[in-house]
Amino acid sequence: MRAVARCGLLAAPPYSQDETGLFRPYLSAAHKATLATVALWMQQAGMSVRQDAAGNIIGRYEGIRPNAPALLIGSHLDSVRNAGSYDGPLGVMLGLECVAYFAACEQRFPFALEVIGFGDEEGSRFPVSMLTSRAVAGLLPHAPQDMVDTQGVSLSQALEQFGLPLRNFVQAARPPQDIVAYLEAHIEQGPVLEAEGKAVGVVTGIAAQYRFLVRITGFAGHAGTMPMSMRQDALAAAAEAILIIEQTAQQGAQDLVATVGSLSVSPGAPNVVPGDVSFTLDVRAGTEAVRNAAVEQIRMALAALARRRAVTVDIVQQQDLASAPCDEALTQHLGDAVRQVTQEPARQLVSGAGHDAMVMAALAPMCMLFVRCEKGISHNPAEAVNSTDVETALQVMVRFIENYAGSFGTKTEQMAG
Amino acid sequence: MRAVARCGLLAAPPYSQDETGLFRPYLSAAHKATLATVALWMQQAGMSVRQDAAGNIIGRYEGIRPNAPALLIGSHLDSVRNAGSYDGPLGVMLGLECVAYFAACEQRFPFALEVIGFGDEEGSRFPVSMLTSRAVAGLLPHAPQDMVDTQGVSLSQALEQFGLPLRNFVQAARPPQDIVAYLEAHIEQGPVLEAEGKAVGVVTGIAAQYRFLVRITGFAGHAGTMPMSMRQDALAAAAEAILIIEQTAQQGAQDLVATVGSLSVSPGAPNVVPGDVSFTLDVRAGTEAVRNAAVEQIRMALAALARRRAVTVDIVQQQDLASAPCDEALTQHLGDAVRQVTQEPARQLVSGAGHDAMVMAALAPMCMLFVRCEKGISHNPAEAVNSTDVETALQVMVRFIENYAGSFGTKTEQMAG
Repeated sequence: MRAVARCGLLAAPPYSQDETGLFRPYLSAAHKATLATVALWMQQAGMSVRQDAAGNIIGRYEGIRPNAPALLIGSHLDSVRNAGSYDGPLGVMLGLECVAYFAACEQRFPFALEVIGFGDEEGSRFPVSMLTSRAVAGLLPHAPQDMVDTQGVSLSQALEQFGLPLRNFVQAARPPQDIVAYLEAHIEQGPVLEAEGKAVGVVTGIAAQYRFLVRITGFAGHAGTMPMSMRQDALAAAAEAILIIEQTAQQGAQDLVATVGSLSVSPGAPNVVPGDVSFTLDVRAGTEAVRNAAVEQIRMALAALARRRAVTVDIVQQQDLASAPCDEALTQHLGDAVRQVTQEPARQLVSGAGHDAMVMAALAPMCMLFVRCEKGISHNPAEAVNSTDVETALQVMVRFIENYAGSFGTKTEQMAG
Repeated sequence: MRAVARCGLLAAPPYSQDETGLFRPYLSAAHKATLATVALWMQQAGMSVRQDAAGNIIGRYEGIRPNAPALLIGSHLDSVRNAGSYDGPLGVMLGLECVAYFAACEQRFPFALEVIGFGDEEGSRFPVSMLTSRAVAGLLPHAPQDMVDTQGVSLSQALEQFGLPLRNFVQAARPPQDIVAYLEAHIEQGPVLEAEGKAVGVVTGIAAQYRFLVRITGFAGHAGTMPMSMRQDALAAAAEAILIIEQTAQQGAQDLVATVGSLSVSPGAPNVVPGDVSFTLDVRAGTEAVRNAAVEQIRMALAALARRRAVTVDIVQQQDLASAPCDEALTQHLGDAVRQVTQEPARQLVSGAGHDAMVMAALAPMCMLFVRCEKGISHNPAEAVNSTDVETALQVMVRFIENYAGSFGTKTEQMAG
């Protein structure tokens, strides 16, 4: 399966900045090398290729009529540090294979097909993420603020290396009338499809997300001399809070998740009763209603805990991302395509992870296909997919495009060679 | 109250290495300046003064007969970083005041009185603690291993600054026949005396202590894509473990304490379900039996938790300190003295903190007096004592020495001036 092999190829130098472990940050030399090779593959698949003002690479396969609006298929080419091979590139490679398939059988549609490889989704270089899809979706009213990476290189300097002036960045925006729909295929990055024995799944939407910093203040004391009955142990209070959070999510809707991922203890010595604990709280659900109700329940339980244990609990909101529902009609087409290819009803699921698709929803109706990955592992070199599953995903995407074209009311045309 | 004022004086330069916040590490210039001043105070109180081979300062007030064995009164002069003024020095200053009192009224005993200021109890410079009392107690069969502080200065270099060769270190050992008993006064470093309205307390022993490193291994996952039902969250498991530990200690004997003071989460990102958590566990009780039973109970509960949550729990022992019971007869004398001075029965309590006294128990019968401190705060600039309490402690120590001398069967002699 060529899409899988190509992801493997892109996981090592010169396409990775690190020798051991894939790391391909936005606007790096590894990114540049990747664009050159992907451009070649796009040309070989029958596309014309260009780089936009934000460093995204775009291949175009014309429709029946030239300059038709495009069905845009994409995902991202950048990676986190010590990444897996498939998070991002697989969606780009699958788009490429769709076009290669239609080009080989000389099939064209009432819309053009475009494949886009976004430059920055992960935010692993500059302190923002999804910068390039936000540019394409027209969500940046001005050139982005110039910012600096950990090596002291500024965004404007990094763009210059790609021949791109920062001031032109927003010109990557596409007029809405140019894009009829956006399709993204991505590994699930979770274990649900594997657990249920499904090769692919249809995403109904990207979850609403809250992020909080919770700080619990008790009173530090000597671990040997402070009797249990007189303690105001911030870590014991945090432990109770973590179990309350876990229970609230377990007892809620199936798509509700709540995570305490990071925690720090102060003073943090083995022989000192903790006086201060801070931890992050991440809550996600398919809808704002489910998410917000869970947070309200957690807030009330933590307030009661604070009174009971004579500690203070401060909850500071750090992030509030709205849910991005997938387009109903497109998702219906995608589900139909899954049923046609797999002979089984499509497994629908909410994406708890963010994707460029959630940004692109502002520009065009969008839908997403998930591909099963091993044990749900992602952001890790152990990330793995099954070639048969990727082949299934490709067939689903091909069938989706055909069905979608059919719904356009215009017959697809076979063009003579 | 002179003992309190002198502790305050010793809390700033030149007696502190830091300008802001007391820090007096072993064998530092601040330590040297302190020894010079303490030596002067000892001489003024009527003592002959010497520095031993480990850098301890010792003042001696002869008994009725010269070269009599000594009742040794002491504590430590070194401090942690950003320390309080009383942890250590107060015990030395109280010893000094006892001698000053008896010298002023020209009272001598069948034993000499010696006051010792230990150089290293806290272990805040080199990676060992109670090095100097271990030398005095004869617990170092050989010169200690040469070791290096955080600035790269070795113990032998630091000793040289004091004119002390490392190879002679063990010559600080006192022959057991030279020491009839050891008495240490120290701030409680806990809140019990304050809560019960007592100026002083009599220590029955220093707690047995276990220290463990507990590691919980689950499975890391994406906070957005890993459903609650499929998680093996190491931090949620640790939270449950912390509450089990707290409950076990709360339901146990009054002198049992268990503390999780330090905890680290891996990977430790807000959007990742924790795969690994390590935390310290410190368990102390007056007797090994109580401590060991509590640890056994915790072990069993954590094993059950590991099965229930499909995580692994490893418990590695890092420290096992035996309890050091105070001498019964001396403690009885000390309790009698408290009753005589305060008109109340003595509050007996276990010391959860370690002290030089636990080491000195190997050399001679020992007893300890605790002085109330504000809110139990210690190892902190906010450490505070009440002058009236310190005066009470002094009277108790004076009365103790007189009672103890009486028990020697030899009448104390008033020496003519």
